[in-house]
Amino acid sequence: KSNEKLLGGLLTSGFDEAACASRYQSFLYRKISAYKPSPYLVSRLRNYEDLHKRCGPATQAYKSALEKIHSGHKLGSMDCKYVVWISYSGLGNRMLALASTFLYTLLTNRVLLVDRGNDMEDLFCEPFPEKSWLLPTNFPLIDQFNSFDQKSPHCYGSMLKNNVVDTSTESVPSYLYLHLVHDYGDHDKLFFCDDDQSLLAKVPWLIVKTDNYFVPSIFLIPSFEEELSKLFPEKGTVFHHLGRYLFHPTNHVWGLITRYYKTYLSKADESLGLQIRVFDTRPGPLKHVMDQILACTLNQKLLPEVDMQDSFVMPIENPKLKAVLVTSLNSGYSENLRNMYWEYPAMTGEVVGVYQPSHEEYQQSEKQMHNRRAWAEMYLLSLTDGLVTSSWSTFGYVAQGLGGLKPWILVKPENDTTPDPPCRPAMSMEPCFHAPPFYDCKTKRGIDTGALVPHVRHCEDMSWGLKVVDGYDEL
Amino acid sequence: KSNEKLLGGLLTSGFDEAACASRYQSFLYRKISAYKPSPYLVSRLRNYEDLHKRCGPATQAYKSALEKIHSGHKLGSMDCKYVVWISYSGLGNRMLALASTFLYTLLTNRVLLVDRGNDMEDLFCEPFPEKSWLLPTNFPLIDQFNSFDQKSPHCYGSMLKNNVVDTSTESVPSYLYLHLVHDYGDHDKLFFCDDDQSLLAKVPWLIVKTDNYFVPSIFLIPSFEEELSKLFPEKGTVFHHLGRYLFHPTNHVWGLITRYYKTYLSKADESLGLQIRVFDTRPGPLKHVMDQILACTLNQKLLPEVDMQDSFVMPIENPKLKAVLVTSLNSGYSENLRNMYWEYPAMTGEVVGVYQPSHEEYQQSEKQMHNRRAWAEMYLLSLTDGLVTSSWSTFGYVAQGLGGLKPWILVKPENDTTPDPPCRPAMSMEPCFHAPPFYDCKTKRGIDTGALVPHVRHCEDMSWGLKVVDGYDEL
Ligand SMILES: Nc1nc2c(ncn2[C@@H]2O[C@H](COP(=O)(O)OP(=O)(O)O)[C@@H](O)[C@H]2O)c(=O)[nH]1
Ligand SMILES: Nc1nc2c(ncn2[C@@H]2O[C@H](COP(=O)(O)OP(=O)(O)O)[C@@H](O)[C@H]2O)c(=O)[nH]1
Repeated sequence: KSNEKLLGGLLTSGFDEAACASRYQSFLYRKISAYKPSPYLVSRLRNYEDLHKRCGPATQAYKSALEKIHSGHKLGSMDCKYVVWISYSGLGNRMLALASTFLYTLLTNRVLLVDRGNDMEDLFCEPFPEKSWLLPTNFPLIDQFNSFDQKSPHCYGSMLKNNVVDTSTESVPSYLYLHLVHDYGDHDKLFFCDDDQSLLAKVPWLIVKTDNYFVPSIFLIPSFEEELSKLFPEKGTVFHHLGRYLFHPTNHVWGLITRYYKTYLSKADESLGLQIRVFDTRPGPLKHVMDQILACTLNQKLLPEVDMQDSFVMPIENPKLKAVLVTSLNSGYSENLRNMYWEYPAMTGEVVGVYQPSHEEYQQSEKQMHNRRAWAEMYLLSLTDGLVTSSWSTFGYVAQGLGGLKPWILVKPENDTTPDPPCRPAMSMEPCFHAPPFYDCKTKRGIDTGALVPHVRHCEDMSWGLKVVDGYDEL
Repeated sequence: KSNEKLLGGLLTSGFDEAACASRYQSFLYRKISAYKPSPYLVSRLRNYEDLHKRCGPATQAYKSALEKIHSGHKLGSMDCKYVVWISYSGLGNRMLALASTFLYTLLTNRVLLVDRGNDMEDLFCEPFPEKSWLLPTNFPLIDQFNSFDQKSPHCYGSMLKNNVVDTSTESVPSYLYLHLVHDYGDHDKLFFCDDDQSLLAKVPWLIVKTDNYFVPSIFLIPSFEEELSKLFPEKGTVFHHLGRYLFHPTNHVWGLITRYYKTYLSKADESLGLQIRVFDTRPGPLKHVMDQILACTLNQKLLPEVDMQDSFVMPIENPKLKAVLVTSLNSGYSENLRNMYWEYPAMTGEVVGVYQPSHEEYQQSEKQMHNRRAWAEMYLLSLTDGLVTSSWSTFGYVAQGLGGLKPWILVKPENDTTPDPPCRPAMSMEPCFHAPPFYDCKTKRGIDTGALVPHVRHCEDMSWGLKVVDGYDEL
């Protein structure tokens, strides 16, 4: 029971329960994961927590590290090194970026500090004991975060380009900005090379801006290989474990999640999540998308066919109740589905309830309530028994990862046509890295990074993307 | 059990169950009524059914009565007399009109035949055994139904006005048209006088067009008084009994009702119906109406208050689930309510689910699916534990009557202001007669017909309307 509550050792005990109810209550809502964190991952997390206690904000170590940013004093061997994560992009992107950054932090024995942006504090509990993961607001470079880009003087890629990094000497800069945003350039991408990692290892402060799940390319850096294989003997579980370790909804978001769950989902015998993200500016619902949703869910028997003949079947007294949780910016898809199962009986005798928590009509990343809802909806999707997601959407990746679900992915439609097949099964529950480098650090030439190792492949939903797929330690 | 299934003797056994599943299944969905039909009512219904078998369509009696329409032959004493009900107005109005007409038919020992209009057959099962209640489509006057109005030559009121009725002789017309529509005139209103009833009693075919629940004024006709008091010793139960006797949803409508119920309502610990009918051409939701809905439901503790402070309350593991069924042409009211109970916790720890089957945006009486939905929604409202209705709406009257529910009535807003109090309790579950006569048949002068007897009063929601209120046989 206690092990269940701590998600198989992923979480540490000792937090104040009331301050963040979701942390120790999530096991009440989610089925026990089929994937156990490795004992090595668990011990590395506990070590990390100790490191964070020693180096986190309001420690002596933090203070002295901070002083070195401008003074340029040489680093002592016992000194703490940091990764500062800049809050950037939509919520799903941010969560993937943060999880990637945390993995990198773990691999490099650094300490993670999180820029609070508009609402990080409003959405997420503290994941580490005692010391906050939030970057103190008086952090000296904080005002420059927004303006950091590919061309900033402290940007590692731009420094390489302009040959101002001296890889030979000991005099590394006290901080570097790593631009890992989707629009990054070839020099920025050298981040994923071992030689560059050796240099970066010496820099006390790394400041990262990214909107991507760059874990798959981390798997391709030889010096991290062995450690990663010990941390994740089941490869396709990185976000599943790190996501559940890091992301605990704050109490008001937890209120949204638990109230919705208890009101609309808990009584169902079975549930299906339907994440409909249409990257199209026209107002929905679009017919070819609706057709696709039906084709996918009916063909794959995720939902029952209905009897359009309206031949009357005597109602069953206690039919099986299936709940469909739809998340979408538009309300039309769920309305059509709800009406279908209202007007016509399911061939199977089941009854099907369709629920959509919100329909915001358009993406409005700034409003507080908007992202609370978005986070609640990702979480709710992760509680369903089965999942259908949209191509290209990080919103869906978060849900599948937290839920430990391999979704059916709706193929991205072209030319307003329903794709055939309408959906494909995911190879793993891992998110897709949308902007991976295609570069061989050794030969210094282009290469298909999706064909190097069996456990890093091109994504189902984006041909040039990379994702970690299942496989048990094939090294 | 069998008595439950037959609603305390209201229904007769022997119908084919599969042809109209609702007839014998309604008891599975609705709580046992607190109101029993009187043994006298039950025996009168059984007698009526026999009469209908003898006189209904496709009988010798019907054929010979039909012949007399034009021939003008004198009536034999054993001959059947008829009331033909013309399908007219919105669905709620039609149901009230038809129930009133049936009561009149019963009181006058006639046989009821129902004009099928656009969709009567599509919506309602046959209520009487063996012979149909539907007027045969070759009925001679059927083409004139639409054009019948106050000025038609066979209109009783117009004949009185023009002095063409000879009350002295035996030569009554073979048929008369009774114009009891809300726009009727003083002469039409003489229908509610005893002298006129004596004359009408001799006419073999009475053809009625009405959109009103004229039962309350029937209670004021002295010659019917004794019989009514025997039929309905509990006065405020007329529509409750007659409505449940007459109106059985056809199988496809029953499918809509049972599927919706099982999917969204059956798991709730308690349910509330909210019937929101806004007689305003502006698109909703209107703020003063939303405020009114909240003021009524919260003040009357029909729904729990929420904690807007968002002070976090540890979620209860198995909270009470309350289902709110909203019917409205507009989706905004239920969305606001649903969001409120999603965003904020209820003070009571309950969770509140809000459901709205359809939002048709505007009244479209002609489409078949539209009225199927409307009928399903009235029925679903009638299955709730408590009910809030809108003033002036027959849609709500039907629900309260079938459900045996005394609703809270939302006071009709004036000048876009939330009324204070926002709602009032209904005196009885009876519908309101919106266009009663104010005439004393004896003194031939105006009179307040809402002050004549204790059991016929002005309505809560319409000051000039009349309704039958509770009271047990005060005669
Ligand atoms: N509430 C809600 N918001 C959504 C939904 N889809 C997109 N959004 C909003 O749009 C943003 C999309 O950005 P992101 O989360 O990065 O997902 P992505 O764009 O699908 O990869 C989210 O953060 C939400 O604010 C949805 O289904 N529900
Ligand atoms: N489905 C649905 N239809 C409604 C609703 N309110 C009004 N209508 C439609 O509008 C018509 C209103 O006429 P009627 O039933 O006589 O009710 P009234 O006008 O409220 O007295 C109904 O028959 C429906 O077709 C509603 O809440 N749901």
